[in-house]
Amino acid sequence: MLIPLFEWFKELGVSGSGVMQYITFRAGMSFIVALLVSTIIGKKIIHYMRMHQIGDMPRNIGVDGLESKKGTPSMGGAIIFIAIIIPALLFCDLTNVYVWLMIATTVCLTALGFMDDYIKVFRKNKEGLSGRWKIAGQVGVGVMLGLTLYLNSDVVIRENVEVRTHNETTQISYSTHDIKSTQTTIPFIKNNNFDYKWLAAALPDDWQQTAGWIIFIVVTVFIVTGTSNGSNLTDGLDGLTAGICAIIGVGMMILAYLSSHVVYAGYLNIMYIPGSQEVFVYMAAFTGACMGFLWYNGFPARVFMGDTGSLMLGGLIATVAIILHKEILLILFCGVFLMESLSVIAQSSYFKFTRKRYGEGRRIFRCTPIHHHFQKDAGEVKALWQKPAHKLHEQTIVLRFWLITVILCALAIITLKIR
Amino acid sequence: MLIPLFEWFKELGVSGSGVMQYITFRAGMSFIVALLVSTIIGKKIIHYMRMHQIGDMPRNIGVDGLESKKGTPSMGGAIIFIAIIIPALLFCDLTNVYVWLMIATTVCLTALGFMDDYIKVFRKNKEGLSGRWKIAGQVGVGVMLGLTLYLNSDVVIRENVEVRTHNETTQISYSTHDIKSTQTTIPFIKNNNFDYKWLAAALPDDWQQTAGWIIFIVVTVFIVTGTSNGSNLTDGLDGLTAGICAIIGVGMMILAYLSSHVVYAGYLNIMYIPGSQEVFVYMAAFTGACMGFLWYNGFPARVFMGDTGSLMLGGLIATVAIILHKEILLILFCGVFLMESLSVIAQSSYFKFTRKRYGEGRRIFRCTPIHHHFQKDAGEVKALWQKPAHKLHEQTIVLRFWLITVILCALAIITLKIR
Repeated sequence: MLIPLFEWFKELGVSGSGVMQYITFRAGMSFIVALLVSTIIGKKIIHYMRMHQIGDMPRNIGVDGLESKKGTPSMGGAIIFIAIIIPALLFCDLTNVYVWLMIATTVCLTALGFMDDYIKVFRKNKEGLSGRWKIAGQVGVGVMLGLTLYLNSDVVIRENVEVRTHNETTQISYSTHDIKSTQTTIPFIKNNNFDYKWLAAALPDDWQQTAGWIIFIVVTVFIVTGTSNGSNLTDGLDGLTAGICAIIGVGMMILAYLSSHVVYAGYLNIMYIPGSQEVFVYMAAFTGACMGFLWYNGFPARVFMGDTGSLMLGGLIATVAIILHKEILLILFCGVFLMESLSVIAQSSYFKFTRKRYGEGRRIFRCTPIHHHFQKDAGEVKALWQKPAHKLHEQTIVLRFWLITVILCALAIITLKIR
Repeated sequence: MLIPLFEWFKELGVSGSGVMQYITFRAGMSFIVALLVSTIIGKKIIHYMRMHQIGDMPRNIGVDGLESKKGTPSMGGAIIFIAIIIPALLFCDLTNVYVWLMIATTVCLTALGFMDDYIKVFRKNKEGLSGRWKIAGQVGVGVMLGLTLYLNSDVVIRENVEVRTHNETTQISYSTHDIKSTQTTIPFIKNNNFDYKWLAAALPDDWQQTAGWIIFIVVTVFIVTGTSNGSNLTDGLDGLTAGICAIIGVGMMILAYLSSHVVYAGYLNIMYIPGSQEVFVYMAAFTGACMGFLWYNGFPARVFMGDTGSLMLGGLIATVAIILHKEILLILFCGVFLMESLSVIAQSSYFKFTRKRYGEGRRIFRCTPIHHHFQKDAGEVKALWQKPAHKLHEQTIVLRFWLITVILCALAIITLKIR
C-alpha cells in the first residue's frame, strides 16, 4: 500500500521518496516490520490466549518435558499470520498477481488450520477437523493456485535471455518473449528444464498443451498438500517448525531474487520470471514473521503455532516454489518435512506389515514423527533403528534439525550453479 | 589450493573444471565443507578432550544449570579453527593479500586464546593468561593488520565507478583508478565516506596522509581489541557467541559480496574493493564453522569454545570489517557484544562510584555480563534495573540475543541503501 503513497510523495517532490522503488529496501523493511510486529503483538496475543485458556493438551507419548507444556497457548499461528499480512500489504506491489496468490494461500490455510484448532480447543475434541475436510481444504488451495497460474495472463516466464560480456564493459540485451509455461527447473542437469507436457507426449499435438496444464495442476495440488502436511507433522518440538521455515524462507528469498533479476537469471540459465521480485518481498515478511515468532516459541515455548500456523507455513512455501518453477528443489529445501512424513509412513506401514506377518506389530523408530525418536533412550521401546543409544535433549534435536535445513538449503542453491 | 588445481584441469580440458571461477560456488562449497568439517571432527575432538579431562570450571554466579556444565570440555575453539582453515585453504585464492591477513588473524588470536585456556586447564590457574599479555597479543594483531593494510600495494579501493542504465540495455563502464585510502563508510549519510586523515586537517598538507594512516592504525588496534574482548565477554551461555557470530558472518558475507561487485558497489555508492570476493569466500567458511560448532555447542552444550574460540571470532569479524572499510557498521553488527561490554563497564563503574559515595557498592544489573542478569529473579539481587521480574531460561536468552543480532544485521545492511 505504501508504493502508491510514496509515488505520490515523489510527485510532490518529497526527498527520499524514491526509496520504495528498490526491492531490497522493500524486502529489508518488510523483514524488519514482520519481526517487530510478531514480537510486539505476540506478547499481547499470548496474554489474551492465556487469560481465555486457549491451550493445547499435547499427545502423551512418554517423553521428557511434556508436563511443562500442558496449558501452553496454541493457535500462535495467528501471530505469524498477522506478522506476514501487515508488511505484505504495506510493502508489496498489490497490482502483482503473485502477491494475491500468496495472500490467498496464507489466508485460506490459516483459516483451515484455525478451524482445526478451534474444534480442538473449544469443542474439546482432540481429533480436530476430520482428515477429510483438512485434505479437501488443502486440495482446494492447490486447485486455486494451479488454475490461477494457468489462466492469469500476467503469469509468464521470459525466454531467450542473453548476456554478453566484454572485457571492460558489460553489455546486456534481452528480448521480451513472454510465454506461459509448465516447465520446472531440475537440478544438476545442464539443459535444466523439465516440461510437464512431455508427460503427455503420446497425445496428439493440440492436446499436449492442455494435458500439460492438467498434469501441472495435479502436481500442484499434490505438492501443496504434501508440504503443508509435512510442516504440520514436523510441528512437535519447541521452535522446530518456525525455525525451519525461517531458514527455508531465506533460501526462497535467494531463489526469488535470482529469478526476478534478468542478469542473474540469464547467467544461471534459470527461468526469468517477471514480477517475482514481489515474491522476494513477501518471503522477507514470511522469514521475519517466523523469526519473530521464535522469540516466544523457542525452548521453553510460551506459545505453540498450532495447525493455524503449521498448515499455512508449509503451504506457502510450496506455493512460492511453484510460482518460481522450482518445485523439485523442495525435496532439498523441505528435506526435514519430507523425512518426518516418510518416517510416519514407514513406521505405520512396517507396523501393519509385521502385525499381519508375525502377529505382532514391530517398529522401525522408537516413536514418530522422527523427532520424537531421538527423545527416547535405546532401551525404552524396541525398534529396528537403535541409534543414538541415549536420548537427546529436545533443544539439541531442534538445533540439529535447523542445521540440517541450513545445509540442505545451501545445497539447493548451489545446484543452480553446478550443471 | 584447489584454484590452481582446477585451472590445470581446465587446461587439460576436463569438463566442469571451470566451476571454481565462480565465487558463489567457492563460497557455497566453503560454507558446506566448514559445516561438515566442524560436525565431523567435532565429535572426535570432544571425545578426546573428555578423555583427557580438558574441561572448564565455570565461575560460580548462582544461576540455574551451572552444576551440569561442570567438566564440559572447553577449548572447542580448536574445532572452529580447523573448520575455518581447511575450507579457506581449499577454496580461497591464496595469492590474495586479504586471505593471508584473515588467516594470520585467525591463527594468532586462536593461539592467544589457546594459551589462556591452556593455563586455565593444565596449570589449574583460574585467571588464565594475565590481562596484560592478552591485550598485548590483541594489540599485536591490530598493529599487524593496520601496517599490512598501509604498506601492501594490493590493498586499494577503486574509485570513480560509473554505472549508466538505458531503457532496455545496461551499459557499465568503469575507470581503473586504484587508490590507497583511509576512508570508511558511514551509514545514513549521502556522501558517505569519512576519511581518518580529516582528523589531521590541522597539520601541514604533506603530513596529513601519514597522520591519517597513524590514526587508522590506532583505530584498527582499538577495534580489534574491543571486538575480540566483546565476543570473549559474550561467551557465557550455551551457543550464544557461536550463534551470534554465525549471524554476523552472514551479514559480513553480504557486505563483502557487494564490495567486490563493481556494479553493486557503484549502485550503492559504497567503495569497490578489488579482491574482497575472497573475504566473501572466507566468511562463508567462518559462518559454516560457527554453525557446525553449534551442533555440539547448542543447549545443553557438550563443549565450550573457550577463549580459543571467542577471542578469534571477535577479532576476525573486526578484521573483516576493517578490510571492507565498514568498521562503523560494527556498532550495529556487534551490537550484542557492545551491549555486553558496556554492561560490564557500567556495572563496575557504578559499583565503585556508589561505594565511594554511599560507603556501599550498588548495582545496575543483577549480574554482568548482561546475559546473566536475565538468569536471576527480581528479588535475588538488589539492582537498579528491575525488569524482567522472573528469570528466563538460558535458552530463551540465547535465542533472543540471536534474534536481536538478526535485526541489527538487517538494519546495518539497509543503512547502505538509505542515504
